[in-house]
Amino acid sequence: MYARNLWYMAGWSRDFAPGALVPRLYLDERIVFYRKRDGTLVALEDRCVHRFAPLSLGCIEGDNLRCMYHGLLFSAEGTCIEIPGQDVIPAQARVRQYTLAERGGWVWIWFGDAPADPATIPDMLPVDAPERYSARTGALDYAAGHALVSANLLDFSHLAYVHRDSFNANEEWGRSRPKRTILPNGVQVDWWVRNQTMPEGMGVPVDEPVDQRAFYQYLTPGVLRLMPSTYPAGAAPASGEGPADVKPYIDDFNGQAVTPVSAGACRYFFSWITPACEGSEAMVDGAFAVASKAFAEDKHIIEAQQAVIDQTPPDRRMMPIQADTAITLFERMMKAATEPE
Amino acid sequence: MYARNLWYMAGWSRDFAPGALVPRLYLDERIVFYRKRDGTLVALEDRCVHRFAPLSLGCIEGDNLRCMYHGLLFSAEGTCIEIPGQDVIPAQARVRQYTLAERGGWVWIWFGDAPADPATIPDMLPVDAPERYSARTGALDYAAGHALVSANLLDFSHLAYVHRDSFNANEEWGRSRPKRTILPNGVQVDWWVRNQTMPEGMGVPVDEPVDQRAFYQYLTPGVLRLMPSTYPAGAAPASGEGPADVKPYIDDFNGQAVTPVSAGACRYFFSWITPACEGSEAMVDGAFAVASKAFAEDKHIIEAQQAVIDQTPPDRRMMPIQADTAITLFERMMKAATEPE
Amino acid sequence: MYARNLWYMAGWSRDFAPGALVPRLYLDERIVFYRKRDGTLVALEDRCVHRFAPLSLGCIEGDNLRCMYHGLLFSAEGTCIEIPGQDVIPAQARVRQYTLAERGGWVWIWFGDAPADPATIPDMLPVDAPERYSARTGALDYAAGHALVSANLLDFSHLAYVHRDSFNANEEWGRSRPKRTILPNGVQVDWWVRNQTMPEGMGVPVDEPVDQRAFYQYLTPGVLRLMPSTYPAGAAPASGEGPADVKPYIDDFNGQAVTPVSAGACRYFFSWITPACEGSEAMVDGAFAVASKAFAEDKHIIEAQQAVIDQTPPDRRMMPIQADTAITLFERMMKAATEPE
Repeated sequence: MYARNLWYMAGWSRDFAPGALVPRLYLDERIVFYRKRDGTLVALEDRCVHRFAPLSLGCIEGDNLRCMYHGLLFSAEGTCIEIPGQDVIPAQARVRQYTLAERGGWVWIWFGDAPADPATIPDMLPVDAPERYSARTGALDYAAGHALVSANLLDFSHLAYVHRDSFNANEEWGRSRPKRTILPNGVQVDWWVRNQTMPEGMGVPVDEPVDQRAFYQYLTPGVLRLMPSTYPAGAAPASGEGPADVKPYIDDFNGQAVTPVSAGACRYFFSWITPACEGSEAMVDGAFAVASKAFAEDKHIIEAQQAVIDQTPPDRRMMPIQADTAITLFERMMKAATEPE
Repeated sequence: MYARNLWYMAGWSRDFAPGALVPRLYLDERIVFYRKRDGTLVALEDRCVHRFAPLSLGCIEGDNLRCMYHGLLFSAEGTCIEIPGQDVIPAQARVRQYTLAERGGWVWIWFGDAPADPATIPDMLPVDAPERYSARTGALDYAAGHALVSANLLDFSHLAYVHRDSFNANEEWGRSRPKRTILPNGVQVDWWVRNQTMPEGMGVPVDEPVDQRAFYQYLTPGVLRLMPSTYPAGAAPASGEGPADVKPYIDDFNGQAVTPVSAGACRYFFSWITPACEGSEAMVDGAFAVASKAFAEDKHIIEAQQAVIDQTPPDRRMMPIQADTAITLFERMMKAATEPE
Repeated sequence: MYARNLWYMAGWSRDFAPGALVPRLYLDERIVFYRKRDGTLVALEDRCVHRFAPLSLGCIEGDNLRCMYHGLLFSAEGTCIEIPGQDVIPAQARVRQYTLAERGGWVWIWFGDAPADPATIPDMLPVDAPERYSARTGALDYAAGHALVSANLLDFSHLAYVHRDSFNANEEWGRSRPKRTILPNGVQVDWWVRNQTMPEGMGVPVDEPVDQRAFYQYLTPGVLRLMPSTYPAGAAPASGEGPADVKPYIDDFNGQAVTPVSAGACRYFFSWITPACEGSEAMVDGAFAVASKAFAEDKHIIEAQQAVIDQTPPDRRMMPIQADTAITLFERMMKAATEPE
């Protein structure tokens, strides 16, 4: 049901404090996260082999984790290393250990076959390097399936209707069409939109028109590498694709990721990142405030969409339109990546 | 599962304000209501053909309705007339339009085959003609199936047990039996009950016995036309049916309707209507207050009944009694009106 | 699905006040309890034969119970003895009556074949004889299946991990093993644990080590007869079973019972009982306070365990350990007692 041989976003590094047992449900699997004494993050199946008590109600002992129902002790590899009052430990006494990768404040988790391939970890700007980047991060729990959120991020024509209040987006977003390129592991979108005006707080003059470029990769299983830039009106190239010749007002990095929780729920991570310089903290605060408002707008319409789907007869089919090209491409890739059941 | 070729109550006219998008779930179908510029009420399927976003989160543009996810625009007939950034609109790009009839402040909706037959719209007194009628209206959402509410309204013997506190009803309601007549589209009941006393506030002396007549038609799919009247004791005809020879204290119209929401839920509409005259506003206030208390009593027992049914093995059958005659007749009619699946 | 030919705990006598209609769901069956004029407790199916209204919303009339929807009257044996407005009462007009036994403030109910065997009613100390016993009682509603609570009570090694804060239990509870004896209707456990310290409030010195004995029978379908005793350190017999030679600090009776509500819910009853003497009220208050804290600890871990089970693929099996011996024995007995489906 889920594509497994891919890296999913598990959280921000700061979500996993030393000494804390952090339970999460991803891909319908219960997982407990904790840090070893050297800070290495560990993820184990959150279910004692004995009687299925959650290990997340357990107790960290050094690098190990003790179930606090009947005291079984597990190593950070998931091997049971102590059963109170019992000398022999059966070989099957182990819980699954998940491979993790922690990179620049982003935590990635691998659900698939061993070995996980570190070369395919998504390449994102760090959110934990304040000397180089000013960054803000957040997360939202969606009462909607992950594919609906991915579809939202794959087609920015919705900006014209969903994000009028936050991003000041107008109908040009609905009428214009981007250049779409198929990547080995996703879709690349290059989207120029002319004659927008910007909201307050993003460090751009609000009383004159601008041209905007949304250049992004959307990667399986649901990772957005968005480089949004904003220019004085007229900067958009005649071809409608590629970079502009002039200096932008904004030239940021907006990294996002969607991780399935269960069939009808997902967790949505987002960040806004800008190179550190004088004034960059205030600028990223402003952009993050506007973006957070927009993300709440998305959540409102997508959760309503999920509710309609839940009340729709299963034989009814959505009707694709031309704007859905990237969605269709991406859904085909995800279908191929999902193991047959 | 539902009888479709019948008019269902959709709401009171005042429920649908100009400019408002009003979502409702009836017969397991999501519907959005709005008014055109000339005031005509429109009901469309509340699900965009594109990606199933609810149109009730959309935007009225003149007489049309725009989906505010990706901007598809629908006419009041449900035809898609604009897809942003796309020239050709597929023929299947349409949502269902429901036929409505708005009569005297009552809104009726047709779920069945076209054309709807206006001749079968239930004939109710208006609730929007204050110069002729003093009227009060209300509605309750039931966590119970519509058939349970209809059964309640088809057998007033429950007044003796459920409505002691509100209507002051006594055991005579349990012991007496009405005259029942089969109509083409429902059941007519003529029910005289002697030796009742009336509660405060209904404009009848409370310290002397009265005779009461509940004369009503209960029509498919669940519409009550009740003409309750109250007389000085002794007015009941010896035959136990037909009108009395003397002037009643009360001679009102009580129109009600039950519309299925889903298998285990329905919406119940009720009104109290009396000819406009001096003092009629105070009288209808008093009667409506007593009736509203009674309707809450019904809701309490019927929702509890539904909860028991939900925990009852499916092979257990209810045991009909003689008081159920009208229920049995009506359920047979509803079964015949329900299309085979 | 449930073992039926056994006595289940229905509640404490004080739960069923004269004049009250008390609804309960046990073994997925809706039951209404009330007392006859002579105080005898009655339990009937909480579902009128007519249209399935709950009798628990009805009205006690002498020893009988009237449904307050349409007025059917039932005797305390469950036979319908009046249908308003109807002369003949069908033979099938009856609701199930459940056999009860009320003993010393404990109420037991029989779901199985008639006749119920009073000889198999669990033998518990009375909680309604203050001149002989100081007693405290309580109950908790669990969002977990009854078998999980029984398993908890059958293996006290969890004290070492779950009850550190309440009972001051330490790892000795995890390491030590009891003597287990199979009874015709349950399992007997004799468990000596050395070198514990006691919490405040139980009438035992808190600054010196003690030896503890948990001697108990756990009987089908889920009844605990626990005789906990606490001694000065060194009192434990060398054999690790049987009584000590010295006088204990504590020598009480702790009776508990678990009754299924539905597949994923149960009701858990507990008591602490000590012989009445000077100071016994304060002692039982102290012990009951500590025990109540421990029972909340159990509820926390067991409901979390149930939540994990609900999210576990059905083909995953728990891994028994040596500490589970009594659990395994008891589950085999319960399986044998459950009728085939």
